[in-house]
Amino acid sequence: MASKTFYAVIAGVGAGTGRSVALKFAKTYPVVLLARNPESYGDIVEEIVDAGGRAVGITTDVTSQESVESAFAQIQKTEGFAGAGLAAAIYNVSGGFGGRKPFLETSIDDLDASLSANPRGLYLFAKSALPLLLQSVPESPNPPTLIVTGATASTRGSAFFSGFAVGKFAKRGLTQSLAREFHPRGVHVAHAIIDAVIDIPRTRGFTVNNGVPDGKLDPNAIADEYWHLHTQHRSGFTQEIDLRPYVEKF
Amino acid sequence: MASKTFYAVIAGVGAGTGRSVALKFAKTYPVVLLARNPESYGDIVEEIVDAGGRAVGITTDVTSQESVESAFAQIQKTEGFAGAGLAAAIYNVSGGFGGRKPFLETSIDDLDASLSANPRGLYLFAKSALPLLLQSVPESPNPPTLIVTGATASTRGSAFFSGFAVGKFAKRGLTQSLAREFHPRGVHVAHAIIDAVIDIPRTRGFTVNNGVPDGKLDPNAIADEYWHLHTQHRSGFTQEIDLRPYVEKF
Amino acid sequence: MASKTFYAVIAGVGAGTGRSVALKFAKTYPVVLLARNPESYGDIVEEIVDAGGRAVGITTDVTSQESVESAFAQIQKTEGFAGAGLAAAIYNVSGGFGGRKPFLETSIDDLDASLSANPRGLYLFAKSALPLLLQSVPESPNPPTLIVTGATASTRGSAFFSGFAVGKFAKRGLTQSLAREFHPRGVHVAHAIIDAVIDIPRTRGFTVNNGVPDGKLDPNAIADEYWHLHTQHRSGFTQEIDLRPYVEKF
Amino acid sequence: MASKTFYAVIAGVGAGTGRSVALKFAKTYPVVLLARNPESYGDIVEEIVDAGGRAVGITTDVTSQESVESAFAQIQKTEGFAGAGLAAAIYNVSGGFGGRKPFLETSIDDLDASLSANPRGLYLFAKSALPLLLQSVPESPNPPTLIVTGATASTRGSAFFSGFAVGKFAKRGLTQSLAREFHPRGVHVAHAIIDAVIDIPRTRGFTVNNGVPDGKLDPNAIADEYWHLHTQHRSGFTQEIDLRPYVEKF
Repeated sequence: MASKTFYAVIAGVGAGTGRSVALKFAKTYPVVLLARNPESYGDIVEEIVDAGGRAVGITTDVTSQESVESAFAQIQKTEGFAGAGLAAAIYNVSGGFGGRKPFLETSIDDLDASLSANPRGLYLFAKSALPLLLQSVPESPNPPTLIVTGATASTRGSAFFSGFAVGKFAKRGLTQSLAREFHPRGVHVAHAIIDAVIDIPRTRGFTVNNGVPDGKLDPNAIADEYWHLHTQHRSGFTQEIDLRPYVEKF
Repeated sequence: MASKTFYAVIAGVGAGTGRSVALKFAKTYPVVLLARNPESYGDIVEEIVDAGGRAVGITTDVTSQESVESAFAQIQKTEGFAGAGLAAAIYNVSGGFGGRKPFLETSIDDLDASLSANPRGLYLFAKSALPLLLQSVPESPNPPTLIVTGATASTRGSAFFSGFAVGKFAKRGLTQSLAREFHPRGVHVAHAIIDAVIDIPRTRGFTVNNGVPDGKLDPNAIADEYWHLHTQHRSGFTQEIDLRPYVEKF
Repeated sequence: MASKTFYAVIAGVGAGTGRSVALKFAKTYPVVLLARNPESYGDIVEEIVDAGGRAVGITTDVTSQESVESAFAQIQKTEGFAGAGLAAAIYNVSGGFGGRKPFLETSIDDLDASLSANPRGLYLFAKSALPLLLQSVPESPNPPTLIVTGATASTRGSAFFSGFAVGKFAKRGLTQSLAREFHPRGVHVAHAIIDAVIDIPRTRGFTVNNGVPDGKLDPNAIADEYWHLHTQHRSGFTQEIDLRPYVEKF
Repeated sequence: MASKTFYAVIAGVGAGTGRSVALKFAKTYPVVLLARNPESYGDIVEEIVDAGGRAVGITTDVTSQESVESAFAQIQKTEGFAGAGLAAAIYNVSGGFGGRKPFLETSIDDLDASLSANPRGLYLFAKSALPLLLQSVPESPNPPTLIVTGATASTRGSAFFSGFAVGKFAKRGLTQSLAREFHPRGVHVAHAIIDAVIDIPRTRGFTVNNGVPDGKLDPNAIADEYWHLHTQHRSGFTQEIDLRPYVEKF
């Protein structure tokens, strides 16, 4: 008798961390990639399928309840995912916040963008994912896991980054609350403080940490870390990690 | 020649902390009380005026940009406040979050209520108050001050309190960011972690800390603390305090 | 019938914070000043007495159990203190740690100096002071208080400051533990994170924060803060405060 | 040409975490086990050797500079370790603190025991290990690593645990300072907050978390975690992790 299939869903997939996480989890699970635009996941789906894996992308606006619920409904109707169990859900959405600027030059739209993509999107994603993760507890090969990508601003509100801090703090508070509620039910909820410039196409030209080798964080290192969190035994869950290049000041 | 008049504005005035803070600051300054309903500030305005102070209440929805801007515009047109400088702005709004409940029984409205009243309301309030506080730096008798009321949930996301934590974390992140930006410009920005059941009419029947005397936090103690923060010299600003009854577990 | 007399004891008195704290508390209480060398307290005792207060200095090595116990025994035999109650005990000892240097250039003596003056000295001081503070709970005009001076290094271990961090972290851990044990018994235990260069004779020539006015922390501001902590009502104890000049980066 | 050999050294080896860590690292490296008594490491050395690994135990008092220096000197003279490079150093010493008791019933010996085994022992161990770890940076297969075992008490000073907290806080402060100094030089320094009763022979009879399966932390899970930290790429170092059973309250 065939054993049950398990899959992973990653929200916030693009050219950086999301892609690396998707490729990493796709080595073991079929993966669902959520992004606002098909261009964000198209190539990655192709890359996974070409390598012999299974992947599907769903265009989703994580800040919309209807869109998130529709995405999760669609997963259940997709070949290879219908009837499968959810083993891991990664919330890697960041969203904008208007960029570094003096508080008095920010607008309420900057703040709303940060609140929408961070706590609100995570809320909607978790609301759909957690019931499925709970269902997977008895049979999942690894403890079902919800991982949330945070930043330095998750624990430190810096000057001129009010919009950034407000969203990251909120997301961390929500993640902690979920960990305390769902750990005892067998679902691992972890928060990662990414304290680095990530080495992705968009940052290729940036000189970081004086340009020393490995001065930017390799997104594959983040993916390895998320996979490691997912495979922790339930006798030892890590709720929060930090991750930064060896040369990063902190 | 008469010296310039300075006033304080308190958002989130009701039967508890807001009232005590208003009465405390009214001993020195004319005060503006903002609340969603006139019943929340009516008696307090009367109490202050009867005691020889000056107070005005303005019905305000702090989650609405228009309403907050209109409230601040109205202050400038009010007798006794027109031409005066803002010495202290207190953000004491809490808002609802749907109460303690399992995450999967919460609704997006619970989350939105918490985000609206906490980071979003603080954002709008700070956006109107900070330019006035900056203007007061040269002449204010005490460093112009923005004080934000937080809670235990500002640093700890507890199980079944996801909506509460999300708003309080966000508010703390925003406050920290503002402190780092505005302290060097002379405006004191402080965050108070209220780790207690406050002794107000609504909690009178609650048995807290086994009912021992002073087991609930006297709102007048909070008011004293806020006044103390306001009067700190700029050579020594406190950015964050905690406050709890002697018998409170922490 | 005369009411009971209460006094304060300050360990770590010299030209800076200790002096300011002593002068502040001496306005209300007779004070005992502990320092390793008589030169550290001689002038301050004189200054207090000249101003009409009561003060006594006792040469004490806070890192020696015998010396600390002897100091407290001597207090009980000193005119004006015999039979009096202890209202406040301030631990302001810092001690050396060998200064900023690479870890591999430090010696075990640097580490031991920091451990002796910080957690070990605080332990011995608290061991003698807490029984007296407990006795004062019923009659003291303010909740009996133990205040401990910390630093930025109490929560952050910086590079090249290993010896500094080790002592400050330890002192904070001990203070927290004491707060959780003694708050419910009515003794207020507070920790102050002093995040600043203090404006004392030794730092007069230092250019701090570009030399702007009030860029160093006035020790009298620290003393005011300690007095404020001491006078907090037991319905609202603050366990930890930070204190830094408005221009200080944090 | 044979490539250079690398080894690991583990201080604080006994029936629990130290044993699991030794067995884990022994799968890849020759290991040195330090413990105060030969009985603590004898069986483990045998177990490793029987499994085809290489291990040596050295009786060491980590609180004595002479003893620690002598142990590291002996490593250099031991067959299989002479000329080898140090890849990982684990400080897993805990030491006593007199157990849970009211502060006023503790003795200075309880405090000194905690300070000796925690910050002082770590200091001496790091002083000998870090120069060797630095030498290994260019050739070590994984970034040379110093890992320190902490506890819940590393960030929270609980009532009746003053001696425990004082040592754990101090050790964490020292570890942070070392991380900030040695990360940029290529040595990974990590601190693990073990928030659990560990499932070892000594705790076998304890009912923890209502006796549910996996309610105690499996020491092999800690060992896996330490190995994972050791194998992190330098573009993404984790400085601190927490680890607790899924049912552990936090």
